[in-house]
Amino acid sequence: MTGDARRWFDLPSPFAMKRGGALVGARLAYETWGELSAARDNAILILTGLSPSAHAAANAEDPSPGWWEEMLGPGKPIDTRRWFVVCVNTLGSCKGSTGPASIDPASGEPYRLNFPELTLEDAANAAHALICDGLGIERLACLIGNSMGGMTALAYLIQHPGSAAAHVSVSTAPQAQPFAIAIRSLQREAIRLDPNWNNGHYDDDHWPAAGMSIARKLGVITYRSAMEWVGRFARIRLDSDDRDEDPFAVEFAVESYLQKHADRFIRAFDPNAYLYLSRASDWFDLAEHGGGSVSAALARIDVARALVLGVETDILFPLSQQQEIADGLHAGGAQVDFVPLDSPQGHDAFLVDIERFGGAIAAFLGN
Amino acid sequence: MTGDARRWFDLPSPFAMKRGGALVGARLAYETWGELSAARDNAILILTGLSPSAHAAANAEDPSPGWWEEMLGPGKPIDTRRWFVVCVNTLGSCKGSTGPASIDPASGEPYRLNFPELTLEDAANAAHALICDGLGIERLACLIGNSMGGMTALAYLIQHPGSAAAHVSVSTAPQAQPFAIAIRSLQREAIRLDPNWNNGHYDDDHWPAAGMSIARKLGVITYRSAMEWVGRFARIRLDSDDRDEDPFAVEFAVESYLQKHADRFIRAFDPNAYLYLSRASDWFDLAEHGGGSVSAALARIDVARALVLGVETDILFPLSQQQEIADGLHAGGAQVDFVPLDSPQGHDAFLVDIERFGGAIAAFLGN
Repeated sequence: MTGDARRWFDLPSPFAMKRGGALVGARLAYETWGELSAARDNAILILTGLSPSAHAAANAEDPSPGWWEEMLGPGKPIDTRRWFVVCVNTLGSCKGSTGPASIDPASGEPYRLNFPELTLEDAANAAHALICDGLGIERLACLIGNSMGGMTALAYLIQHPGSAAAHVSVSTAPQAQPFAIAIRSLQREAIRLDPNWNNGHYDDDHWPAAGMSIARKLGVITYRSAMEWVGRFARIRLDSDDRDEDPFAVEFAVESYLQKHADRFIRAFDPNAYLYLSRASDWFDLAEHGGGSVSAALARIDVARALVLGVETDILFPLSQQQEIADGLHAGGAQVDFVPLDSPQGHDAFLVDIERFGGAIAAFLGN
Repeated sequence: MTGDARRWFDLPSPFAMKRGGALVGARLAYETWGELSAARDNAILILTGLSPSAHAAANAEDPSPGWWEEMLGPGKPIDTRRWFVVCVNTLGSCKGSTGPASIDPASGEPYRLNFPELTLEDAANAAHALICDGLGIERLACLIGNSMGGMTALAYLIQHPGSAAAHVSVSTAPQAQPFAIAIRSLQREAIRLDPNWNNGHYDDDHWPAAGMSIARKLGVITYRSAMEWVGRFARIRLDSDDRDEDPFAVEFAVESYLQKHADRFIRAFDPNAYLYLSRASDWFDLAEHGGGSVSAALARIDVARALVLGVETDILFPLSQQQEIADGLHAGGAQVDFVPLDSPQGHDAFLVDIERFGGAIAAFLGN
C-alpha cells in the first residue's frame, strides 16, 4: 500500500503568468524529507524533469520508491539527516499541481487548452513562492535542477537574485537548441495528430494513446544512448511465443523495451500537460534575461558555488551546453565544479548512474 | 518538362524470396549514364538509400537533377565519360520497381501487405540479376552503396562472390543496431497507428498523411546532426505572419524545415513500401552469412579494393560501424581505404557534402 506524502501550497491568487493571463486559486504539490533547521539554512529544493512527480524518494507517508530513490535519504548522497529537502511538482504538470487537467474556477470545467501559456519562468516563480512564502525559507542552501528542471532552476536563480547559496545543474540547457526543439515538436505533433486528442478534449474513453505512445518512445530513444543499447539489446529478439501475429509487430528486444516504457506512461500523464511543458521547454532561453546573450545572463546569476554535471552520451542536452553553463556561472563569480561524466546511459544517466552522479553531488554537498 | 529515363528489367519469374514466397512477373526500374565498354569492364552500380529513385543524375531522357546530381556526370567524381553507371530502384520500392503498391498478378489488385516479406538480400539478388542477366556484365568495376544501399551492397557481395572488383561503402551498417532499429520501428508505428493506414488499405482519399509526416520528420532529424542545426537554425523563429493560429503550430525555423521535408515526402512515397523497406533494414544482419559473426562474414567478401566512408556526426549509422566494415574487408584481403569525414551534416552528408565525399570517391576511382 502506498500513501500520499504530498502537501499543497496555495499560490498567491491571482498568479500572473509571464506571457499573459493569471491563474486563480492555483496550487503546487510538493513533498519534503528531513527537518528544517532553526536557522532555516539547510534547505535543498529539487526541480524535476518534464514528467516526474514530487515523490523523489520514499518518506514516512509514502514508502513507495521515488524517482530519485537512491539519491535522496538518510546516508544517501543528498543526506536527509542533514538537509531539509523539498521536491515540487512543476506548475502546469498533472501530479497534484495546477495544470491543464485542473478545474478552471472560471468555468467549472478542466482548463484544457484554456490554461494560460506556460513558461519555465512561471514554474520557477511558483516554486520560489512555495519556498519563500510557503516554507519561510529566504535562501536555499542549494537549488538542484535536472533536465527541464535545470532550465527552471536557471530561471529561478536569474529572477530571484540571492535565492540560493549553491546550485547543482544536471544535464540541462541554458536555452533550447534546434535538435531538442525538433524532437519535442515531433512529440507534440504525434499527440496533436491523434484523432482522440481532439484539440485537447479527450476523455478516459477517448484517450490519445497512439500519440502518447509515439511521444514517449521518442523520448526514451533520446533519453538513452546508442552505445548503451548496443551492449544492452544488440539484436536480441523476443521469443516467438511473445510475438504478435501482426507482420510489423514488436520483434526485437529494444522495441519491447520501448513498448513497456510507453505502456507505463500513456495513461499516467495528462496529454495537454505534456504539450504545455514540452512547449515551455522549447521557449526557454536564458538569453532573454541577458540582453540576448546566454553568457551575459549566466554571469548575472548570483550563487557562491555551483556543480555542473552532464554526460558525453547525452544527445538531447549535449555536454557543450553543460560547459556553457559552467563557464557562464564562473564568469559571474561563482566557484564552479564542471564534472563531465562517462555514463553510457545518455540523458537519463542522472536517474540511473547514481554511482557517478551521487558521488559528485555528495562531494559537492560536503558529505 | 522532365522526361522519363527509366528502363525496366523483367526479373526471372518466379523470383524466389529469402523468407519464403516468390514474385511473379516482377521488374526493376533502372537508369544508366555513360557507355558500357566493349570488354564490359567499366560498369559501376549504385544501390540507394530507402527513398531515392533510380534517377541519380540528369541524363538525356530526363534532364531534371537527380538525387546525386553533383556526384555523377561528365567530369564529376563518378565520371560518366569513363564509367558506365547504373542506378537501380530497390526491389520493394515504389519508383518503378515492383513493390507493395504494384499489382499482384494473382489477384489483379495491389499487393499491399500480401507482398512477400522483403529482405535486403532479395533486393541485392534482384539488382544482381539485372547486372548479369539484363546487362550482361559479369563483374562490376565498382559497386557503390549508400545507407540502406550500403547494406544491400554487402548482401550483394557476399551472395555473389567475385561480382565486383571494387566496393565503395558509404554511411551504412553491417547489421542494424538497436538505436537504428528503435528509430525505424517508431517510424513504422507512426504510419501503422494512422487510422488511414487501415492495415495497408489506404487510397488517395484516405492517405496516412499524419503517420507519414511523423515518420519523415523523425527520419530527417536522425539524418542530420545537432551540430549542423545549431549553426543553421539556432533559435530563429518564423515571422508572425507565417504562423498558424493553432497554439502548438510551427514557430521555430527548424520546425518549418521539417514540415517542408515532410510535405514533399508524404504523397511521394508509398507507405506500405516504406514499411517493407524499413523492416528489411532492421532485419539486415551480415552475421547470418558468417556463422553468427559480422567480421567473419566481412572477411568472406571477395573484392580487391574498397573505400569505406562515414562521418563522425552520423547518429544513425555511426562511424564505429564504418570502421567495422573497413576492418572486416581488410581482414578478407581487400586493400581498404577507410576515410572518416568531418562533415557536419550527419548521415545525409553523402548527399550534400560533395566536396568531401566526391573528393574521396574521385581519388578512389582514379580520376
